[in-house]
Amino acid sequence: MTELENCMESLIKVFHRYSIEDGDAKTLSKKELKKLMENELPTFLKTQQNPKTVDFILKDLDQNKDDKLDFEEFLPLVVGLSMACEKCYMLHEKKKTKK
Amino acid sequence: MTELENCMESLIKVFHRYSIEDGDAKTLSKKELKKLMENELPTFLKTQQNPKTVDFILKDLDQNKDDKLDFEEFLPLVVGLSMACEKCYMLHEKKKTKK
Repeated sequence: MTELENCMESLIKVFHRYSIEDGDAKTLSKKELKKLMENELPTFLKTQQNPKTVDFILKDLDQNKDDKLDFEEFLPLVVGLSMACEKCYMLHEKKKTKK
Repeated sequence: MTELENCMESLIKVFHRYSIEDGDAKTLSKKELKKLMENELPTFLKTQQNPKTVDFILKDLDQNKDDKLDFEEFLPLVVGLSMACEKCYMLHEKKKTKK
């Protein structure tokens, strides 16, 4: 598999590793999302001072207001973080070429 | 790094591996997008019978109509393919549990 194919597989596997834990295996409950973020996005979570970060994120991503995230609702989190990371990457690359 | 962090890094690295090739390093030209898809999404590309697939995808993703894709415009391609793959994954899992 290519790097991009591996990446898409990882997204699906990571989501389902947590979504399967309780109740509906197709969705992340708040508890499952919290666990996913604590284990898979520890660096991001540490930068967030507010203990209610996971609640805010769930509310923000939960399109159909069922207090759960399906895979489609989960992906914008990865997109948003990737876009933020890419901006840092570009700044870093700019600095490197200036040296 | 966690699996999800690795995945986000891969998305950025893969995009920039191709975007840096000609002209504007921040965006994928049609030629660069074609190369990225041929190398990174060969399985998907083979399922597409139409030789103009890359043209259609570029047109579809190019929000600001500059005939190039920045990282933000590129991500919906990964999201769309991941969602399609996840649907197959779910069907596959369903079949497994039925057995």
